[in-house]
Amino acid sequence: MSEKPAPWSREEFEQKLRDKEAMYHINHPFHKLMHAGKLSQKQVQGWVANRFYYQTAIPIKDAAIMANCDDASVRKHWVQRILDHDGYENEEGGIEAWLQLGEAVGLTRAELESHEHVLPGVRFAIDAYVNFARRASWQEAAGSSLTELFAPKIHKARLDNWPDLYPWIDESGYRYFRKRLNEARRDVEHGLQITLDYCDTREKQQRAVDLLQFKLDILWTMLDAMWMAYIENRPPYCMDVEVTK
Amino acid sequence: MSEKPAPWSREEFEQKLRDKEAMYHINHPFHKLMHAGKLSQKQVQGWVANRFYYQTAIPIKDAAIMANCDDASVRKHWVQRILDHDGYENEEGGIEAWLQLGEAVGLTRAELESHEHVLPGVRFAIDAYVNFARRASWQEAAGSSLTELFAPKIHKARLDNWPDLYPWIDESGYRYFRKRLNEARRDVEHGLQITLDYCDTREKQQRAVDLLQFKLDILWTMLDAMWMAYIENRPPYCMDVEVTK
Repeated sequence: MSEKPAPWSREEFEQKLRDKEAMYHINHPFHKLMHAGKLSQKQVQGWVANRFYYQTAIPIKDAAIMANCDDASVRKHWVQRILDHDGYENEEGGIEAWLQLGEAVGLTRAELESHEHVLPGVRFAIDAYVNFARRASWQEAAGSSLTELFAPKIHKARLDNWPDLYPWIDESGYRYFRKRLNEARRDVEHGLQITLDYCDTREKQQRAVDLLQFKLDILWTMLDAMWMAYIENRPPYCMDVEVTK
Repeated sequence: MSEKPAPWSREEFEQKLRDKEAMYHINHPFHKLMHAGKLSQKQVQGWVANRFYYQTAIPIKDAAIMANCDDASVRKHWVQRILDHDGYENEEGGIEAWLQLGEAVGLTRAELESHEHVLPGVRFAIDAYVNFARRASWQEAAGSSLTELFAPKIHKARLDNWPDLYPWIDESGYRYFRKRLNEARRDVEHGLQITLDYCDTREKQQRAVDLLQFKLDILWTMLDAMWMAYIENRPPYCMDVEVTK
């Protein structure tokens, strides 16, 4: 009988998680084109409209995590994410900030809210995240959110480059990225502590790494669907194909 | 106040459902290449391995429908689908027949059962179907399975053409298609009666048409992910992109 491998040290485990940055969607060809200023307005709009479905799903995912969590002190902390996205009292949330980004790129709020531009492949990927959070333990679902480790870099790059690359986007559109730059840094601290504390066996540690990969797959698959529809011009129900004899 | 539209007649409603055949995945470019004999063995293997995940999900989907159904007479009928896929007593089911197809195209059972070749985009699409069935009413979930209306044609085309197009596939691989040719015809009768009976308002009828579209989106999105990975050679985490200055 083979012995169970010893758990990684806390530092080694954190590094395994951080190493996953190589597969973050910042490296997706769609993202590379976006960051090189190579997207047309239509393509930027496609990204903003599809990504809005993700924004609307995040607080639902967070509510699902809370619905599985019997630790009030964790819920008390985690609820901040819902407040950040949905807003509360007079505070506008991330969903509202994304709607403003949508308007800044030339979409209407109604277009965004109807999700009419959302590609099925994008929808299925995002729904997979919400459904996972509904059925997983709150600790595992919290761990899968650790792509936030890599998020500040991507928000910062957009704030630095987009005003030059896409001068037609109104300045008011950037509120979301500025807002998340700070929130993501704070959220990730909490999520990381939960994961490092919870994973006290190699098996749990490996599972957390796999679940982070699952979340990376979701983000990557969203951009694959957008690549197919907006870069290759093969949206769903495109039936063109050349069949040579 | 606008009046609610009158329901379609039973015949009109059935025709609306049947009209959706235009969007069946038989028309997807990946399928067109497959049916023209243009796929390499690797590409056929990719399709068989990804589609196997769908085969394994179908009886789970059917169990979810039964788990939401309080009508024993419906369950008594619907359970046949689970028996067909999983097998019972000495009878081999569709999952086993698909494993034989896998072997006939040169894959091992272990490769198939591990789902190691399953693309994330394919997995998310299929999981969307199972998760929908878990949360929808059994009548709505039953209705979404009506892509079976269009399935016999696709199975028959494979039986007719593949032996010539892909002579390297062993004859034993075709059992699944032969088996489903009869089962799909029988299943669709039951699913169609449930849907025609249940949808007694225009709203329910329209919802059934939309849910059939949702199921078509799932099948189409599966092939989009395979197109990207196996035809365009852009599998997940392909980072190649040409960014011209």
